[in-house]
Parts: sequence; structure tokens; C-alpha cells
Amino acid sequence: MLKKLRDANNKGQHICVGLDTDIAKIPPHLAGLADPVYEFNRIIIDETINFAAAYKINLAFYECRGISGVESMMRTLEYLNGQTFTIGDGKRGDIGNTSDMYAKSMFEYFGFDSCTVAPYMGKDSIAPFFNYKERLTYVLALTSNPGSDDLQMKMTSGGKYIFEETIALTKELNFNRNAGLVFGATKSQILRESMAILSEFDLLLPGAGAQGAKIEDIVPIFTINNFNRYLINFSRSLLYCDSSVRFSEFIRAEIKKTDELIRNYI
Amino acid sequence: MLKKLRDANNKGQHICVGLDTDIAKIPPHLAGLADPVYEFNRIIIDETINFAAAYKINLAFYECRGISGVESMMRTLEYLNGQTFTIGDGKRGDIGNTSDMYAKSMFEYFGFDSCTVAPYMGKDSIAPFFNYKERLTYVLALTSNPGSDDLQMKMTSGGKYIFEETIALTKELNFNRNAGLVFGATKSQILRESMAILSEFDLLLPGAGAQGAKIEDIVPIFTINNFNRYLINFSRSLLYCDSSVRFSEFIRAEIKKTDELIRNYI
Repeated sequence: MLKKLRDANNKGQHICVGLDTDIAKIPPHLAGLADPVYEFNRIIIDETINFAAAYKINLAFYECRGISGVESMMRTLEYLNGQTFTIGDGKRGDIGNTSDMYAKSMFEYFGFDSCTVAPYMGKDSIAPFFNYKERLTYVLALTSNPGSDDLQMKMTSGGKYIFEETIALTKELNFNRNAGLVFGATKSQILRESMAILSEFDLLLPGAGAQGAKIEDIVPIFTINNFNRYLINFSRSLLYCDSSVRFSEFIRAEIKKTDELIRNYI
Repeated sequence: MLKKLRDANNKGQHICVGLDTDIAKIPPHLAGLADPVYEFNRIIIDETINFAAAYKINLAFYECRGISGVESMMRTLEYLNGQTFTIGDGKRGDIGNTSDMYAKSMFEYFGFDSCTVAPYMGKDSIAPFFNYKERLTYVLALTSNPGSDDLQMKMTSGGKYIFEETIALTKELNFNRNAGLVFGATKSQILRESMAILSEFDLLLPGAGAQGAKIEDIVPIFTINNFNRYLINFSRSLLYCDSSVRFSEFIRAEIKKTDELIRNYI
């Protein structure tokens, strides 16, 4: 499972395609199909598969349509057919016996190669995910959104930020070497300063594209640190870069351009 | 929606029945039915409806069975038929545009009267839930599990615990007066000391029963503060108190006893 990600990263592939597929935003000519979300995802996958190191499915965008949304998600996973690394982005986390069930859902029922978890409830809430040795679990450390200031950037009386406390507790759970961290691409300065503690983890970086983070501010930090276990996520800026009947060509051009830009800085 | 909860609380009802229904733990004689989880829930509801102020559905226990699990959950909600206040316990939370979708799922698709959210990503990650003025959103403040020490009990350089920072940011979002907090029943000492800041919120208290919190340590705190907007959740200790063919009688006796014990301290 992890090998797919390692292989992609070792080939210089670092793009994660975020399938935050909003039925209200997909090109109108797909609207009449039986499962427009799946049909859209299928086209996105066809156009991006040569450049994508991973596909991240944002569960919220599927759950909001209930069972038919979950069906669109499952069809999309089936279409991917295990070729490319997948991330179930659900940011789950609860007391131990409940997180067991979430881990089962993500890794056994849906069969994601990895998932994202929220650490607010502490170690016993995220430990069940790490028990799946062949799967990668990304813990939210420092996120890309404005609200990351509200708790994550609070300084403790011990002189550490809360996101650093999160990294420390994730480190304690990393005995299977299957821990990742979510780290906002919008926080390049902090990323630069934190590479020493971050480098034992796989990194997933949201915040590029629609949220404003720039490749040229991020990739050189990894290159200079000789670190290649990272994914930069692109969702809205890629999926909705065009809505005409020829949108697939625009998406292919957009991901190719993004891949080239990343490679410029490796 | 909220009125159902107010009415129950005003009648002295404070039990939340947690439908953490584990297919592996339900009485064996139900196993052969078409939807054992739903059949079990239906019996639990029948036996508890006269005492329950709310039903809390723990989404993990349904999601782990994928689409058929979601169907069991929806049948259960349909059986409840809007009579009693419902809580969708999913502990969701993501960047704003994604939390919009989670809120839509919880409140529009499934139609829960309330839900739980995780605050790690800050204000913009939980604000979309509060936009549903007639629904109650419970933010995780101080949880009942051992991991609550890992981040929630970290002291900031400003002299506040992180859970207090969470309460402060929830307060800022409470302009529709529809904010609740999750506060572990296992933390009775801190609950006692925090009542001044907690009393503007509805409280949901997990941790009684299997996790060890005692009614006699909790309810007197509310009584002394003349506060009645609270729910004490019971899941495992109630659902699995017996597994014989006569389990329904034991469940009825158990909830009746629990209700009487609470009323002793009101």
C-alpha cells in the first residue's frame, strides 16, 4: 500500500489530486448522466493519472448526498482499482472503541491506503488507525485554514505550540513507521523551521491553489532538506479550472504545468 | 427541533441513549434477521422512549458497515420519527467549504436535530454548523477519555487550558444561541469549577457507565447551579446490560433505575 506512494515520490511525483467533487460545480453537460459525480471523477482520473502521486477523497462532499454519494465514492475507488495511492480525507477521531470502527470503515470497508485523523481527543483516539501497519495515517498538525490560529498556534506554558504537541504525540505512536502529518502549505515559514521534527513523517500539504500557497515557497524547503515523502494537494484550482465541454483538456494542461513547476524546484 | 430537548429537560429527563450499536455485541437471537442492528435499535427505543431525553447515534458504528450500515442508521431515524431529540455523533470538522458539506449531511440529509463537531481546526471549521439556527451543535470541549490530557488539558502561556480556549471560541460563535459543548462526565471536579462559563451552553456528558463516571458526582453540580440543559449519555452499560432473549426487560429496568437515580439528585 505504502509502496505505491514511495514509488511515486521516488519518481518525483508529488501531486495529490483532491476529489472534493461538488455536484453543483461540475460542468453542466455532465448533469444529465446517471451518476454525474462519478463520471466527472472518472474524467479527472483519466486526465491526471500520469501525474498524480495520490488521489484524496474528501468524504464530506460524498456524505452530503447520503447513500448515493457514498456510491459515487465507491465507484470512483473501484475505477482507481488500486493503481494509485488513495487518501480517505474524513478527519475522524473519537474514543478508542469508536475510532476502531472509523479505522475499520476507512481501511477495511472502503479500502483506502491512508486516511486523515483529528487529534483533539488525544492519543487513544488516533492509536487505532496506526494499528493498520500497511496503511498510512495522516494526523492534522498545522492546517491551512484561518482557524489554525485558534487552537493549533496557541503557545503552551512549556513553550511549545499546540501543533508541536500534536507532532510529539504522533511521534509516540509511530512505532510502525506509518504516521503522516497534515501540514498547511500556507505555512511555509513554519514548515521551514520545523523540518527537523517533520522529517520522520510523510507529509500531506493542503492549501495550494484556491487557498493561495505557492509551489515555489514550498518545494525548495523539501529539496534543501533532501526530503521527498510529501504530497501537495490540489482540489478546487484543478477540478474547476474550466467548465466547458472541453474541460478535460484544461485539466490535463493544468496538472502538467503544475508537475513541471514542482520539478523545477526539486 | 430544540424545543423537544427543552421540553424533556424541563420534565426532568436527562438521559441520552447512545446507540453505539455493535453488530458483534447484540443478542445472538437477533443475528438471523435481515437488519439486526435496526431490529436491536428498535427494541432499545421501545424500551427507553419514556425515559430518554435524546438518542445519540454514533456514526462510526454504522459507517464501518458501509452502505448497509448507513441504511440501518436511516431506518433507526425513521423509526424515531422525530418524536425525540436526536444527536448525530460524528465529530466532524474541516475547512469552511468542507464543513458546509458535513453540516448539510448531518442536518439536511440525515435530519439530525444536533450533531457533535471537533474544534481542532478552529472557528471557520465549526461555524458552518452554527448557521443552522434551529439545530444544536455540540463542540468537543473536554472529553471523557484518557487522551483528553494530551491536548485539551495543556495549559497555554496565557494561563488557560486548551479546553477553555475551545469554550471561548465556541462562545464567539454562539450568536444564534444554538451552541452546546461536550464535557466528560469523568471530569466532575473541573465541571464543578467551570459551571460559570459552561452555563450558557447545552451540555452533553459522555463517560457515565462503562467509562466509570457516577451520576451522584455529576447531577448535584447542576442542581446546585440551577441548571437543567444537560444530557448524560449511556451507551454500552445500557445496550449490552444483558444478551439473553429477555434483554429488553433488563434494558427497561436499567434505564428506569438510572432515571430514578438522576431524579434523586435533582
